[in-house]
Amino acid sequence: MYRSHNCGELRATDINKAVTLAGWVQKSRDKGFIIWIDLRDRYGITQLVFDEERTPEAVIKEAQNLGREFVIQVKGKVIERASKNPNIPTGAIEVLVQELHILNQAILPPFTIEDKTDGGEELRMKYRYLDIRRNPVKDSLIFRHRVTQEVRNYLSNEGFIEVETPYLIKSTPEGARDFVVPSRMNPGEFYALPQSPQTFKQLLMVGGMDKYFQIVKCFRDEDLRADRQPEFTQIDCEMAFIEQEDILNAFEGLTRHLLKAIKGVAIEKFPRMTYDEAMRRYGNDKPDIRFGMAFGELNAVTQHKAFNVFNNAELVVGIAVPGGNSYTRKEIDQLIDWVKRPQIGALGMVYCRCNDDGSFKSSVDKFYDETDFRQWAERTGAKAGDLICILSGDTHKVRTQLSALRMELAERMGLRKPDEFAPLWVTDFPLLEWDEETGRYHAMHHPFTSPKPGQIDLLKTDPGAVKANAYDLVLNGNEIGGGSIRIHDKETQSLMFDYLGFTPEEARAQFGFLMDAFQYGAPPHGGLAFGLDRLVAILGGQETIRDFIAFPKNNAGRDVMIDAPAPIDNDQLEELSLKLNLK
Amino acid sequence: MYRSHNCGELRATDINKAVTLAGWVQKSRDKGFIIWIDLRDRYGITQLVFDEERTPEAVIKEAQNLGREFVIQVKGKVIERASKNPNIPTGAIEVLVQELHILNQAILPPFTIEDKTDGGEELRMKYRYLDIRRNPVKDSLIFRHRVTQEVRNYLSNEGFIEVETPYLIKSTPEGARDFVVPSRMNPGEFYALPQSPQTFKQLLMVGGMDKYFQIVKCFRDEDLRADRQPEFTQIDCEMAFIEQEDILNAFEGLTRHLLKAIKGVAIEKFPRMTYDEAMRRYGNDKPDIRFGMAFGELNAVTQHKAFNVFNNAELVVGIAVPGGNSYTRKEIDQLIDWVKRPQIGALGMVYCRCNDDGSFKSSVDKFYDETDFRQWAERTGAKAGDLICILSGDTHKVRTQLSALRMELAERMGLRKPDEFAPLWVTDFPLLEWDEETGRYHAMHHPFTSPKPGQIDLLKTDPGAVKANAYDLVLNGNEIGGGSIRIHDKETQSLMFDYLGFTPEEARAQFGFLMDAFQYGAPPHGGLAFGLDRLVAILGGQETIRDFIAFPKNNAGRDVMIDAPAPIDNDQLEELSLKLNLK
Repeated sequence: MYRSHNCGELRATDINKAVTLAGWVQKSRDKGFIIWIDLRDRYGITQLVFDEERTPEAVIKEAQNLGREFVIQVKGKVIERASKNPNIPTGAIEVLVQELHILNQAILPPFTIEDKTDGGEELRMKYRYLDIRRNPVKDSLIFRHRVTQEVRNYLSNEGFIEVETPYLIKSTPEGARDFVVPSRMNPGEFYALPQSPQTFKQLLMVGGMDKYFQIVKCFRDEDLRADRQPEFTQIDCEMAFIEQEDILNAFEGLTRHLLKAIKGVAIEKFPRMTYDEAMRRYGNDKPDIRFGMAFGELNAVTQHKAFNVFNNAELVVGIAVPGGNSYTRKEIDQLIDWVKRPQIGALGMVYCRCNDDGSFKSSVDKFYDETDFRQWAERTGAKAGDLICILSGDTHKVRTQLSALRMELAERMGLRKPDEFAPLWVTDFPLLEWDEETGRYHAMHHPFTSPKPGQIDLLKTDPGAVKANAYDLVLNGNEIGGGSIRIHDKETQSLMFDYLGFTPEEARAQFGFLMDAFQYGAPPHGGLAFGLDRLVAILGGQETIRDFIAFPKNNAGRDVMIDAPAPIDNDQLEELSLKLNLK
Repeated sequence: MYRSHNCGELRATDINKAVTLAGWVQKSRDKGFIIWIDLRDRYGITQLVFDEERTPEAVIKEAQNLGREFVIQVKGKVIERASKNPNIPTGAIEVLVQELHILNQAILPPFTIEDKTDGGEELRMKYRYLDIRRNPVKDSLIFRHRVTQEVRNYLSNEGFIEVETPYLIKSTPEGARDFVVPSRMNPGEFYALPQSPQTFKQLLMVGGMDKYFQIVKCFRDEDLRADRQPEFTQIDCEMAFIEQEDILNAFEGLTRHLLKAIKGVAIEKFPRMTYDEAMRRYGNDKPDIRFGMAFGELNAVTQHKAFNVFNNAELVVGIAVPGGNSYTRKEIDQLIDWVKRPQIGALGMVYCRCNDDGSFKSSVDKFYDETDFRQWAERTGAKAGDLICILSGDTHKVRTQLSALRMELAERMGLRKPDEFAPLWVTDFPLLEWDEETGRYHAMHHPFTSPKPGQIDLLKTDPGAVKANAYDLVLNGNEIGGGSIRIHDKETQSLMFDYLGFTPEEARAQFGFLMDAFQYGAPPHGGLAFGLDRLVAILGGQETIRDFIAFPKNNAGRDVMIDAPAPIDNDQLEELSLKLNLK
């Protein structure tokens, strides 16, 4: 054992104890006759003191040569600190050193190992092992561990069984792209890495496991967007003999427990909203309801005048920005420029100031009068001092644009408070969504999701109108979980594959085992999967997941620390019955 | 909610309650006027009764058509059972059915869903979702969950942090073959799936995480032997600022806790044995010490006569088989045939009967006398009534052969009791082992293992004699864990790669990131990994791991249920910049 105590442990009650500590040199102050060193480990920092009157001379000499991040072991006595540091738990004491052993030297780190480091993102990723020494990253990883422990213990106590499903499975063209793994023993054949354990958890329900969960890595070979990872972690859950209401209650229970146990936040009942309502009121299927600014639809009170921009629009919709009347003309122009950026794509923005005296001032004053404005204010909930921002156009596009504006304004106004938690169930998602690229309907959730009872015939006449027993759990404007009640009979599942454009042969080849399984007595079942990386980040008060992943990949899917992916030997390719086919 | 209670829950105290149950039809007995059905779910079995005097006629009619494994929901009243079944927890009651809903039909399962099934291994694997309905498999999976929960809670309480390391890493030619994953975004480059998170856990130690664990899938593309899986699960652990003694104590603590919590077995202190001693006494580096039959080396008491088989042998070694003198001549001949089988490869076996009157009768009576036999008995610990079995030849081979015989005899005599637990630490493994095939030394554990202090120079003169700070945890003759103290400085690690035949360029290309990391202040560290699949199987009293894995692969690495691996589309190959290269 290299230590009797760790660096976060000693207190005033330990004064006069002989101790051995080990850790990293955080910093050193050399006053000639006395040297102070901050010794750091995972648990904290302890001040060491080397004093020419009380520490052997040779030890002082050696201490003078210690650089940042040297790994040392010291033996000494705990003494009372002259000037106490109330900011750290060990601040009442210091260790008067008698013996010093250098366990390992360190060359100068490429960035400072401090909470606020001078290292840029790329450098920190390349030397991730040094980045992990910094409190913000280290604490995030420990936080993640705490969350997963809470999840496992909660679900286990509720009778869920964690079952490991396989990683080497079968590729299916449905959904995102699979990562594949060539099989040496079966030349020309490939495994796929799971995008989720979906079919396996359904088979576990057919197998009678009743309540399943797994915290599990999943893989998607997608063109990466910022803050997406090719490998990510899910809390994957499934239950049998349940209805949608049971699932919502079960996982609301888990989430409520996490909020209470981890954040000390008590939330009684999570609000619910249908997908249609979420789109209408927030232009978004994962609305952040920590703040207001709900949409007011204005067609009825804008399309009766000669303003053709509105008259020709499918949807005219606005939000009230609290206190927004204080914006200068220049600030409003900047907002208009912001919504016109290609990433947002609005053609323009109409605004209306709500003055303190009850009057209005709008960019479309020549078309509308006070009566109109008063109705706009009413429908958007605008009060004196607010600013009404109005967009118009194609319903889907304009909702997306106004939602982006709403989030941007909330961000700027500090309404997205990281220590405030607003969960929300969004239910009744459409079963299918139209894909412009392929010109056909795709399963919005996945092809195993069951349509709402009685709506299956609607698939023939109005597929886009069919709603599913599908739901998302939203937290602070992020989807943290999603799931559905599944199809559990072979006929409906065949029908669904048919509607999704599978030939019977394709359906058989890819999902034959599942449809077979349904013939042997499949119970009604459904489930939900949480995105763990995001859940942990949001609970941790952040929106970027990277600090909550020990060894993340960059936006090109590379691990810049180990330099992967990398070429492999020709022998290896040969063994796998493969050849490169580079363009 | 499809049920008010599960099928394992109702007791005599519930009599007269109105209940709703759901589950599978286990079996049905139709007496005409009365039908009994055993309804099964994960939690147990409840007897349903349909009685023509008390159940609506239509319900009885429908009940008559229920087949095995139909999924049904019933509503009814809990009543006292006329003939109680003391073998099941619900045996005091039955449910008098009023309503019956068929939730799903079932075709006849391909094997019986019973504890003793009529299904063969292949069939059970193809319909694994039905196999999981059987108690032996279901209970094994639940048992596995309990074990992992205990492991996680114990290690968390001891201050270990579970950190997820990446699955898409980099291929290294050292060790077993990697599974690789082509990168679409980086044409011509590949990720590898980890054989273990070894380098990442070491980097976490460099990163100051101090105590790490992870229950994690690992992958090896090996030619499969029976009971090997291409993907398997480890409890992977690492600690910093520790010596070997600390690691042994930490994980002895975990194992002791598991034995107590899971099996109710209290074992105070685990015995320890060096590798050399284990080989000398048991011919095996993972001896089963639940029983005796330790080896007696007999060179000194066999090589002084004219028996050249022994005189020319490097090692003459025997074991005493308790009570073995009762074996008939035919039985002994069968033993001799057994050791001569090609799988064992002995050239013959000498035996010596220890008669009850203190005399001896041996197959080599013409070379040796009573004085010799008495010494053989003394060295092998043979008593009156025992049989001494002696093999001779090349030391390593003969030890392996006699070890196989020892295990076989113990198995036959029922000495390998599944409910008895004998853990053992085997320490001081050799650092290197000679590989006949490549004609060079390989790292016995892995290239990151540190040699014993002071032995590094011996690498130059007698590499095979160098011992490592490496240890295995053995339970009942199975290696359940293994680990080592790691090298933590760049120079020693470079030297080690050099001895293992890496050029500096190869070492740099594959492990440059690790050697770089060692320059920035790496603490002394070491760890251990448990094979979870085997650990769980042994705790469960079995030696085959397959029932403890939800969806195992067969010996050809195939998942016969989903039929993977499988060919992929040409488009997919094209996207990955690959071509098949089939012979």
